[in-house]
Amino acid sequence: MKHEARISDSFWNRYRKLVKNEMIPYQWDVLNDKADISIERERDDASIPNEKSHAMENFRIAAKRAKGEHYGWVFQDSDVYKWLEAVSYSLCYEWDDDLKKTADEVFDLIKDAQEEDGYLNTYFSIMEPDRKYRRLGESHELYCAGHFIEAATAYHQATGSPDALAIATKLADHICQTFGEREGQIKGVDGHEEIEIGLMRLYHLTGKKEYMDTASFFLMERGKDPGFFIRQLREDNKDALLEGVYRFPLKYFQMHRPVLEQDTAEGHAVRLVYMSTALADLAATTGDERLADTCRKIWRNIVDKRMYITGGIGSTVTGEAFTLDYDLPNDTMYCETCASIGLMFFARQMLRIEAVAEYADVMERALYNTVISGMALDGRHFFYVNPLEAVPQKSANDPGKSHVKTVRPQWLGCACCPPNLARLIASLDRYIYTVRNDEILVNLFIRSEFKYEDDDKNITVIQNCDYPKDPKISFDIENNNDASVKLKIRIPSWTDKYTGSIDGTKTDIATENGYWCIDVTKGKHTIGLELEIIPKRWYSNPKVSENTGKVAIGRGPFIYCAESVDNGEDLHLLGLSPNSFLDHKWQEDLLEGVGTIEAEGIRLVKDGAKELYLTDRPQRSSQKIRLIPYYAWANRGENEMRVWINEI
Amino acid sequence: MKHEARISDSFWNRYRKLVKNEMIPYQWDVLNDKADISIERERDDASIPNEKSHAMENFRIAAKRAKGEHYGWVFQDSDVYKWLEAVSYSLCYEWDDDLKKTADEVFDLIKDAQEEDGYLNTYFSIMEPDRKYRRLGESHELYCAGHFIEAATAYHQATGSPDALAIATKLADHICQTFGEREGQIKGVDGHEEIEIGLMRLYHLTGKKEYMDTASFFLMERGKDPGFFIRQLREDNKDALLEGVYRFPLKYFQMHRPVLEQDTAEGHAVRLVYMSTALADLAATTGDERLADTCRKIWRNIVDKRMYITGGIGSTVTGEAFTLDYDLPNDTMYCETCASIGLMFFARQMLRIEAVAEYADVMERALYNTVISGMALDGRHFFYVNPLEAVPQKSANDPGKSHVKTVRPQWLGCACCPPNLARLIASLDRYIYTVRNDEILVNLFIRSEFKYEDDDKNITVIQNCDYPKDPKISFDIENNNDASVKLKIRIPSWTDKYTGSIDGTKTDIATENGYWCIDVTKGKHTIGLELEIIPKRWYSNPKVSENTGKVAIGRGPFIYCAESVDNGEDLHLLGLSPNSFLDHKWQEDLLEGVGTIEAEGIRLVKDGAKELYLTDRPQRSSQKIRLIPYYAWANRGENEMRVWINEI
Repeated sequence: MKHEARISDSFWNRYRKLVKNEMIPYQWDVLNDKADISIERERDDASIPNEKSHAMENFRIAAKRAKGEHYGWVFQDSDVYKWLEAVSYSLCYEWDDDLKKTADEVFDLIKDAQEEDGYLNTYFSIMEPDRKYRRLGESHELYCAGHFIEAATAYHQATGSPDALAIATKLADHICQTFGEREGQIKGVDGHEEIEIGLMRLYHLTGKKEYMDTASFFLMERGKDPGFFIRQLREDNKDALLEGVYRFPLKYFQMHRPVLEQDTAEGHAVRLVYMSTALADLAATTGDERLADTCRKIWRNIVDKRMYITGGIGSTVTGEAFTLDYDLPNDTMYCETCASIGLMFFARQMLRIEAVAEYADVMERALYNTVISGMALDGRHFFYVNPLEAVPQKSANDPGKSHVKTVRPQWLGCACCPPNLARLIASLDRYIYTVRNDEILVNLFIRSEFKYEDDDKNITVIQNCDYPKDPKISFDIENNNDASVKLKIRIPSWTDKYTGSIDGTKTDIATENGYWCIDVTKGKHTIGLELEIIPKRWYSNPKVSENTGKVAIGRGPFIYCAESVDNGEDLHLLGLSPNSFLDHKWQEDLLEGVGTIEAEGIRLVKDGAKELYLTDRPQRSSQKIRLIPYYAWANRGENEMRVWINEI
Repeated sequence: MKHEARISDSFWNRYRKLVKNEMIPYQWDVLNDKADISIERERDDASIPNEKSHAMENFRIAAKRAKGEHYGWVFQDSDVYKWLEAVSYSLCYEWDDDLKKTADEVFDLIKDAQEEDGYLNTYFSIMEPDRKYRRLGESHELYCAGHFIEAATAYHQATGSPDALAIATKLADHICQTFGEREGQIKGVDGHEEIEIGLMRLYHLTGKKEYMDTASFFLMERGKDPGFFIRQLREDNKDALLEGVYRFPLKYFQMHRPVLEQDTAEGHAVRLVYMSTALADLAATTGDERLADTCRKIWRNIVDKRMYITGGIGSTVTGEAFTLDYDLPNDTMYCETCASIGLMFFARQMLRIEAVAEYADVMERALYNTVISGMALDGRHFFYVNPLEAVPQKSANDPGKSHVKTVRPQWLGCACCPPNLARLIASLDRYIYTVRNDEILVNLFIRSEFKYEDDDKNITVIQNCDYPKDPKISFDIENNNDASVKLKIRIPSWTDKYTGSIDGTKTDIATENGYWCIDVTKGKHTIGLELEIIPKRWYSNPKVSENTGKVAIGRGPFIYCAESVDNGEDLHLLGLSPNSFLDHKWQEDLLEGVGTIEAEGIRLVKDGAKELYLTDRPQRSSQKIRLIPYYAWANRGENEMRVWINEI
């Protein structure tokens, strides 16, 4: 079974060219400490290393091609792996001999850094070879291994390189041998899930069942032995590898109970979605309903109770974590870029389990808002944290908001997000369609050509659209087989008005789990879909205390925000009239092309009153409020931003 | 000059009896580890010692009457000193031979714990005698000394005990000798201001100028040498005495610039107000206008920009500190009980500088709200942090709110607040009136008898009131001198309607800096004042982003709040109608007697909607909203509370 999509979308091609032409060379320079940049700590914490990346140099030292000490986090290697993964995907849509050569050289270096038995981690190889796997709660050894395996798998698929795959299987074999339930194996897991994703991918590529079994072992072992990390800590009895990790509760690592008994999204948000991604992959691959049920419960908890309207997750900086149901503060949250990327991973795997459009709705929400707000339009500045409300002076002076940056740094002490963005955008073609049994799901409206070939399949779907600028979408389909195929087109949950046509004839659209299902018979067909894409007011479920009396504006997949560059300072003084017209205008010259929304509103008058507390209600003046898509904020200098606007 | 007030007020006598009959014996048991209680950490920080108090045992060990190690904070001694100070004041209004005997024994023990040269601190005497004064940023040695001097001064004034005073002067002489600008002296300050207050009090009692000079040295030296603490740290080069203190910026210690150049309230809130108290005392005592001006600037910044409507200060848990102007979050703030007590200290000294009623207004705001909310009505449970909005589930599950407790603990790991409350309430008679030059200021409306005797003065003021229950206040004055005396009665800023009478004749009230000034001639006079004390709506200055669209209700000095025990859960769903009648009723049986306020309002309907984000505005149902005075919250089981209510 082979299927692939080629993107020709105006909105996304800009991003994908940015990855190829800007992000990949820029990040290569950063990883080699050749970029003239300043690295910022992602929050006010002096333990965050920010002098340099040193990530490539660590490999050179581990490979004995250079001398020196390891610098950076214990998981510094993963920056290189995610970069390699992004390179792999970029080669699929734009081949580049030089880039291929560079990547080959990096894999060759990694090969030299890999130890005889397959072990791979520059920190431990260089600095503490005797402490391998002795502090799994902090060490990120398996986390890094997972990222390497993902990169090598992607590279092999892109280039056919046997060398990358050889390192990956050697590493995976070593891990499968070292971890498990057999005598002499380590019966424990990594503090940060990721190896599970990597092993599943390697299984899908090679068909070697041991990889899936070990992924399954890591997933099922998690939370079964909650004392594992602390026992390792006591036995090791040396300095911490990561300051403070053991102060967090077991939930931080999803170690508070066995995975199949977890029914809420707890702890470090990225870890939770990475775990869920692997679990959903395993469920889809094996058909195990117990696993699928656990995934559904965690998903429901996120989507119904713990997700920001921007698709951000993680309500607190402490442990970069979930907190409790309906706790969604707008100005102290975390909403890490990587967490929303991970939410897309999770959604993508859920779509393999079942054709439920909500998964794609959430994928789209994350993608069009928090994921791409994680980078500047220039591809060279990155947010770790994506607030829904930011005031520069508060970020500068309130220590509880030191993580809420209002200018995207050039690089971050913990640089997980920039290469994660690169690999996500470069692989976006894999999110548009899902093939399952005899169905093709259309999840995202991105101009593209999709080919699906199999023993008994030969189908092409050409998706034409300029979404969400233009409400019209059409699909030119060619089914070259006698058997019909089911095309399921997502009807986005943010609209309830849409019309469809099949081969020029208007047709009623009945949806099944949010999809419009069409049996496509042999031959050529054209399917038309027109969605009502207009600015809309969104309200929070009343249980969200932070948003009472507030409204957010959305148009299609985009959530909008106000910036002070358009609306003046003190955005909390703005009030949107509940019935005013929301005027959408396309602005080709603004922010690489965005639709703005303007509406009549008010501004509370702040001047005059000297006293802090007054018996007079504040006065109001009228003001036109101008909104831009959330993802594009902070691209016009440092300024205030707010998604949830007071409604008057 | 001698003046004293005796309180006969129904509201405050209950509290003062609580101090004498409950708090003093209870706290004595706690300090001796004889109370069967559990000690809670004031926030989620494993470094906070909470196994026991051990405070008295530390003295026994230091005095060589027992063996063992020091336990608790480096400033554990101060718990005992504040308890002694509370005892001293209580003896002034209710003599108790047994209590006097106990206190004498404690002073005798402290005498034995004091070192030959006058040094006094159990931690360093027992554990690290070689590290004395080597880590002043953390050590609290002078902080504890200041508290001891305050206690001994109060005890001497209450009992005439020469022994307590002897220890204090020996300690003070040792400090005056050790610290200063002369060769061989330490040119540095303590990380936590307090010694300055103690030395000023000792100066007022003894007249020994050296004490004032050294207080002045400590004040003027602060911030002149910002590197002092770090230099000491490097020279000492040993483990921290208090984890994490040096991670805070210099502002934390008010060390960021010389005191006379400080014009905003920065850093740890308690430290800032303790510093300001001593500075204002010095200014009032010396008449130095430069000092007074600095005090006024800091005061203005607090009152105009950094104070909660409850008189709470300190907007963040990180460093228990101020943040920036108009940054007043209601659910993550600190608002430490001790900080509001310190704000009262500061206000009291400012009244010595100048007769400006605002100082007394703020003193009253702090006293009737955050100060007494710091303890339960039973006198045996205490808040460290006084939120304006609290939800038990959020405090339990959001690590950013671990400090926002919703049930007052029996005792705290850092137990600064409970004995601070005891000494404040026991000395409340000293806050009602201020004598300055030929003026008597009436700052607080507390039923009391005030006598002022001097060479040429013999004045009695009997204040009759049942404030704020009853709006009528009268003063029976007897001036036994030929010269008239100026009585200045505060007209509270929370009302603009009031009527006055002098000797039965109605009179216009003209105010001067907020005081109604009356020349009281020889003989007996009766002055009547009736204040309009009705429920009022209060709004924040629009610059406070957290309170846009919200209203707080006050009546007289009390700010009100809603609790879920009266209004159902999810107080954020309540909306107060802007024009509804605020119905005040006295409830003798409720919460030891409170006035409740009821008003028509609404409740957003939260049930039904499963989705997090909706296009429908939430429905409303009508609901009567019931409010109680803020200080009395959390006395009817664990429940939600909210001061700033959404206005609809």
